[in-house]
Amino acid sequence: MMELNALSLKVDSQKRLSILDQQMLPDQESWIVVENPDHMVQIIRDLKVRGAPLIGVAASLSLALWAAKTQPTLGQYLKESQKLRDSRPTAVNLMNALDRMNQVAEASQMNFNKIEQMGEELFREDVQLCLDMARAGAELIEDGDNILTHCNTGGLATVGVGTALGVITEAHRQGKRIHVFVDETRPLLQGGRLTTWELEKVGVPYTLICDNMSGSLMSQAKIDKVFLGADRIATNGDFANKIGTYNLAVLCYYHKIPFYAVAPKTTVDLKCPNGTQIPVEQRKAAEVQGVAGSFGEIRWAPASAPVYNPAFDVTPIELLTGLVIDGHFISREKAQKGELLELF
Amino acid sequence: MMELNALSLKVDSQKRLSILDQQMLPDQESWIVVENPDHMVQIIRDLKVRGAPLIGVAASLSLALWAAKTQPTLGQYLKESQKLRDSRPTAVNLMNALDRMNQVAEASQMNFNKIEQMGEELFREDVQLCLDMARAGAELIEDGDNILTHCNTGGLATVGVGTALGVITEAHRQGKRIHVFVDETRPLLQGGRLTTWELEKVGVPYTLICDNMSGSLMSQAKIDKVFLGADRIATNGDFANKIGTYNLAVLCYYHKIPFYAVAPKTTVDLKCPNGTQIPVEQRKAAEVQGVAGSFGEIRWAPASAPVYNPAFDVTPIELLTGLVIDGHFISREKAQKGELLELF
Repeated sequence: MMELNALSLKVDSQKRLSILDQQMLPDQESWIVVENPDHMVQIIRDLKVRGAPLIGVAASLSLALWAAKTQPTLGQYLKESQKLRDSRPTAVNLMNALDRMNQVAEASQMNFNKIEQMGEELFREDVQLCLDMARAGAELIEDGDNILTHCNTGGLATVGVGTALGVITEAHRQGKRIHVFVDETRPLLQGGRLTTWELEKVGVPYTLICDNMSGSLMSQAKIDKVFLGADRIATNGDFANKIGTYNLAVLCYYHKIPFYAVAPKTTVDLKCPNGTQIPVEQRKAAEVQGVAGSFGEIRWAPASAPVYNPAFDVTPIELLTGLVIDGHFISREKAQKGELLELF
Repeated sequence: MMELNALSLKVDSQKRLSILDQQMLPDQESWIVVENPDHMVQIIRDLKVRGAPLIGVAASLSLALWAAKTQPTLGQYLKESQKLRDSRPTAVNLMNALDRMNQVAEASQMNFNKIEQMGEELFREDVQLCLDMARAGAELIEDGDNILTHCNTGGLATVGVGTALGVITEAHRQGKRIHVFVDETRPLLQGGRLTTWELEKVGVPYTLICDNMSGSLMSQAKIDKVFLGADRIATNGDFANKIGTYNLAVLCYYHKIPFYAVAPKTTVDLKCPNGTQIPVEQRKAAEVQGVAGSFGEIRWAPASAPVYNPAFDVTPIELLTGLVIDGHFISREKAQKGELLELF
């Protein structure tokens, strides 16, 4: 395998995989050397690595590099692959990436070079897909636009420039004067901690808001467009994304503000006909009772407070203006006619 | 003045006014003895006391007790009153209460007994108003309802049982089996810290959520009604309330969920014809960059992050199902016909 470098992940000349610990941002840039798939599972569960495309690539690389080092049997390999697959139930990119890792292992009868090449291919594909999405999506942005985004969908969510945030930074790179409103994205604050950090790195002007302030801005016509990512897309265009996405979808629908989801084709779950079929994981109560991270761990609610804490919500295609998938723009009308399937 | 006792404020036999420090809840119940109006202004600015009705009563009592002690001239008295008035620009209860305190001081030519009596009258009026609202509002709640509320509008926002939360606890007291979903209410977390604390005290079953999770619940038909307070109501029924109210209003409108604001008549600003005339204060960036309270002060966003932080948003009457004002229910249709004015 060649050396690989991204904002959020790298493989060095000694074939060591390192992951930028996203829990330590924005104040500290600290890297974790990934020991093996079990370690990777823990890193994923702890949200030190996050973002559906990045998780898929990171998990696959950890599997490939561990296999090259320990030379497991196919049975041992598939067992580690399954552990990685189970680490996040909603993200379909992870499943798709590991399916390809498993296929090459089986087809090549555990040829470790070929397994490594597949890991590298998944990395390079994601970089290219991000570029494709960024260029296609940036065509939807006009000079002077005020854009709202949710969660983090940039170079910290992928191994390329990102999905929705890649679109935004590409528009900026093209010279369009834009301003970005960043939802802080409770409970895990990916917007407040990560998107702000990325936008400062790239020099895009932005304003941080709490998730409940978006309507106030929209009612004053201060938001022209919303761009955000997707964690799983059903074949009819319904999609799951970070909790809070559905609130924004309804707000945009009411205010007639264009609302776009941006994701690689690997996010589409061909086995999933509509949003009601997408499983949504519930996370632990402590996340809503307070906050935790490198900045400390505090609780402001009663320790006994019962909590509802879904990681995602599901937005029906009716509320969407369109999807940017790889280099393609699929409008709501086209998605409703089944044109998402024509990409495959 | 007689002794006065409320969940959030008391006047003891030595005529000392004490305020429950709401920044220390839910883990600690700590009381602050109010020295004088300047001290009260600081307590209001620091949000140690909050809730539009409570602020009005607390400010008036601090003025009355300080006047009785220091025997100021009318000019000195009006100067202190003005400082209190300027401590929160949006809350009209504060202005109405201080107007009455000023009138009695002028009309009685600084009769300190009469000034004290007015302070006490404002307290007793609020207790009675809360009961009136609670009873009128509870009629809108059915056995088995799931109710969402925002911010804190209970015994910590008034000197009685509260406004919207008073309605909810009254329905529970009447034996209706209800469940309450509590918006945490970023940035200051009044829902997560205070409403949870009050509901546990009263024994009403509840679930805490982040503000961006309400749509997820509504899309699953898990919310039957929304009750929340109001900080200022225009004569056409438009109203300002804690930031995040407008997002909920749009979500309820889209999901056809009844959406009620509950407030005392003193919240109606007769000089304000509609919502566009309501001033909205911007608060400091640090509140959005992190959290602060008795639990500590932390920041997770870059220290340089620019922030939008309005204390309130404005909801137009079109999005409301109705208003509970004192003992009256005013439907949207009635408010649109100008019937709010008939209460005066």
